[in-house]
Amino acid sequence: MTNTQLPDWLARRAALHPARPAIISSSAMWSFSELDARAHAVAAGLQGLGVAPGMRVAILAHNSAPYAAVLHAAPRAQMVLVPLNTRLSAAELAWQLGDCGAHLLLYDEAHAHLAKTLSVPQSVALEELGPQTVQRSAISYDALPPAPTLWERGKGGEGHPEPPNNPPSSPQADAPLIKLDALHTIIYTSGTTGRPKGAMLSAGNHWWSAMASMLNLGLHEDDRWLALLPLFHVGGLSILLRGAIYGMPVVLHERFEPHAALAALEHERVTLASFVAVMLARMLDAAGTRPLPPHFRCALLGGGPAPRPLLEACAARGLPVVQTYGMTETASQAVTLNPHEALRKLGSAGQPLLPLELRIMQGDREAPPNQVGEICLRGPMVTCGYYQNPAATAAALREGWLHTGDLGYRDDEGFLYVIDRRDDLIISGGENVYPAEVEAALLSHPELAEAGVIGAPDAQWGAVPIAFVVAKADCKPQAEALIAHCRTQLAAYKVPRRINFVAALPRTAAGKLRRGVLRELED
Amino acid sequence: MTNTQLPDWLARRAALHPARPAIISSSAMWSFSELDARAHAVAAGLQGLGVAPGMRVAILAHNSAPYAAVLHAAPRAQMVLVPLNTRLSAAELAWQLGDCGAHLLLYDEAHAHLAKTLSVPQSVALEELGPQTVQRSAISYDALPPAPTLWERGKGGEGHPEPPNNPPSSPQADAPLIKLDALHTIIYTSGTTGRPKGAMLSAGNHWWSAMASMLNLGLHEDDRWLALLPLFHVGGLSILLRGAIYGMPVVLHERFEPHAALAALEHERVTLASFVAVMLARMLDAAGTRPLPPHFRCALLGGGPAPRPLLEACAARGLPVVQTYGMTETASQAVTLNPHEALRKLGSAGQPLLPLELRIMQGDREAPPNQVGEICLRGPMVTCGYYQNPAATAAALREGWLHTGDLGYRDDEGFLYVIDRRDDLIISGGENVYPAEVEAALLSHPELAEAGVIGAPDAQWGAVPIAFVVAKADCKPQAEALIAHCRTQLAAYKVPRRINFVAALPRTAAGKLRRGVLRELED
Repeated sequence: MTNTQLPDWLARRAALHPARPAIISSSAMWSFSELDARAHAVAAGLQGLGVAPGMRVAILAHNSAPYAAVLHAAPRAQMVLVPLNTRLSAAELAWQLGDCGAHLLLYDEAHAHLAKTLSVPQSVALEELGPQTVQRSAISYDALPPAPTLWERGKGGEGHPEPPNNPPSSPQADAPLIKLDALHTIIYTSGTTGRPKGAMLSAGNHWWSAMASMLNLGLHEDDRWLALLPLFHVGGLSILLRGAIYGMPVVLHERFEPHAALAALEHERVTLASFVAVMLARMLDAAGTRPLPPHFRCALLGGGPAPRPLLEACAARGLPVVQTYGMTETASQAVTLNPHEALRKLGSAGQPLLPLELRIMQGDREAPPNQVGEICLRGPMVTCGYYQNPAATAAALREGWLHTGDLGYRDDEGFLYVIDRRDDLIISGGENVYPAEVEAALLSHPELAEAGVIGAPDAQWGAVPIAFVVAKADCKPQAEALIAHCRTQLAAYKVPRRINFVAALPRTAAGKLRRGVLRELED
Repeated sequence: MTNTQLPDWLARRAALHPARPAIISSSAMWSFSELDARAHAVAAGLQGLGVAPGMRVAILAHNSAPYAAVLHAAPRAQMVLVPLNTRLSAAELAWQLGDCGAHLLLYDEAHAHLAKTLSVPQSVALEELGPQTVQRSAISYDALPPAPTLWERGKGGEGHPEPPNNPPSSPQADAPLIKLDALHTIIYTSGTTGRPKGAMLSAGNHWWSAMASMLNLGLHEDDRWLALLPLFHVGGLSILLRGAIYGMPVVLHERFEPHAALAALEHERVTLASFVAVMLARMLDAAGTRPLPPHFRCALLGGGPAPRPLLEACAARGLPVVQTYGMTETASQAVTLNPHEALRKLGSAGQPLLPLELRIMQGDREAPPNQVGEICLRGPMVTCGYYQNPAATAAALREGWLHTGDLGYRDDEGFLYVIDRRDDLIISGGENVYPAEVEAALLSHPELAEAGVIGAPDAQWGAVPIAFVVAKADCKPQAEALIAHCRTQLAAYKVPRRINFVAALPRTAAGKLRRGVLRELED
């Protein structure tokens, strides 16, 4: 069985249905044929700039169609794409660029100034990679073919065959190959112990993730997936990959704006969309009492525990929510609750996607039902480790099993309940905030002796970080100064919302911070 | 990436939606939970009979629910299933059983007599493997839950959540694992040089085939696939595998009967069905002018070239036909024409499914567009070779490329046209008939010196075999006697319909039969 390489999925989709829309964004409307041609041009452009197989190419940009072209260029140039979180501070970005040894940094106009302050061998504006931008006005949206409906003919349509194809430039030459074992992406995730780790995802991890999602959610000829999440997160990036693998249009928003998201559902024939809880709540608020369009068949809800009132509000509106538990290290979705069970199993993350195995471990043995343990996952979507970080890799991966650090249990029917995403993780608006990282930033201030960070409940964001600090002897730092200091070190969402000055932090005999006590102080 | 094993798909589907119908046949209606339990019981039963990992277990039976249980038991018992063509003669069956070294033969009641004449270490009636048969009357069809429609809620339904699940017996214990590289099935295919060859298909070949089909046809929550083809052909067997992998009900008919097929479309909510041309034509005849039900979204048409009048008749009725070119060695579909192109590219087999590469070879070089050559395929659905037949394997597989022996070309847009399924292959009602095999049977008659077999056009079956023979000196065999002799050697569909006595056969200087001249004689 030759299972180590596949034809380039985008090239194949471009050959199969060249005129079908691939990317629909506010500034561009690219068909599969156009996206394919642009990915080809970007790959050639990067190779011209000296990008050789295996080199890391970082990208610092808002969501856009050219971002998609860069993503799909990666396997063609055999480069490794490193999507950078645009919300990070310059110091955080510099550290990641250094850690992955980026050869080249791509940036968009909004990040040009920041990019030029970062030290990399080369940095190149996306625009310089060729004529990437097609004005939306250049291709009339109305002139685009309707979504094919032949397979939906029973549901009212007569079937609109697609317009004559633009023949691909070289139809006989088959698509280039994508090696499934090849490193495709490095995405940094913060950890419990300070520095972020670069989770390595192979082309195969992404491919299997797309298969797993399809086996769970199905695939309809008229599917269109709305991408509201940033592309530097695996939840956003994986939508573009599914789009190319399935031959499915992706409606791509530069940033989340609830009314724009709602408008996409209503006017762009979106059938699926990925959300974190705060986004879904805001979109429902924006909708008011307006009914959601009937073709919208699935809200995939990830990025942390979903508040019960939100799920109940969705259920009351008949909005089909698919709750999912996943992470960068599993190339997105791992365990999913389908809509049939949404009410009966409210609060559960569901059952593992077909290719994945799930175990709840208590030390070296598997926990019995209803007993809490560490959530462990194994399967073809799981990362092979962290880039040039054998210690972190060895800690997380044992015999193929990813030890997530998250706690949970399975009920009598095998449904997973996630108790806590690591006992100290703060999830703020879908973004992970690790206290250790915030504490390290605080402690880099010369007037602080100790710092402890916990999450405090927040109606809008789910949680926000707050800090408890102990000043050095004879120092009297001001809260505003500490927050300003953090802003130079950290992404804005990681900066503590409040600083509490205390005489000492509660610690165990071994000196370990007792965050539980801090949480009690806060309640 | 751990991509060599997956959780047992049937066990996972049983855990996820235990009450959903898995197999709907005239005598049984099994839910996923029941099918899973029966597969488990069959695996245990076979292990009790001494079936050890790697052993070949042959099955000689009509389509039935217990057949499905045996199929899904195969990876659990780590055995290799050898589905036998029920239309073969005892001599042909005995040869295949010997060739694969079958340890055990399973048979149903209809084949009990035949099975007992065959020499194998053990032969066991399907019924003896446990309480396999659930009378249809025992589970009222009307009591079954409606097909889930939550994701279809825009199409009129309010959404019917599935009934409370029957909890699987041991929910916490995860599903057993299926090794993708493990040999799963041996299916015999006839060849140009006499003896059949046992094409080896791994679990991974079948898995990738299911993925490839899903990427092409989509997957709807309400999908149900009608299996009319015999399960001893890969086209039938693969439907059961897709059913378990997708969690999709399969409506299983014991044999093709056009009115029953039509009734299944109309009353069992079938959305997809696989056909060979003769079946589809007969079903359309049976339908007369009645409209086909609107939920029927795809007729997958394989097993040889589709007659243009049939395609035109389907188009006129708005019946979405997906033509496909595939073979045992590719675990079913390989190249498919989708309905959007059915009329524009009438007669084409379409484009390769996403995971497969396609090349048209003229000797060692790739043919330019519109030039005929040998169709070659590579990818994760392609067999790793023929069982214990290194010569045939080496001839067919070179650097992962399957040399199909079929001739064809790709047009300027990359669409495949199959010119001839091997230049001498006769496809009769979807069954492959190799002249060499029929000639060998004829030549085993003591009064014949030479024999040449070709296909003659036939309105009902597409083609039927006819023979040209040269009697030995001083012999005067009768056509009836030769046909009766063939019946003892060959499946009925391979027996020549007509015997032409000639003084000599046209041959090349090298002595090779010139079938083209025979065909001219026949025209």
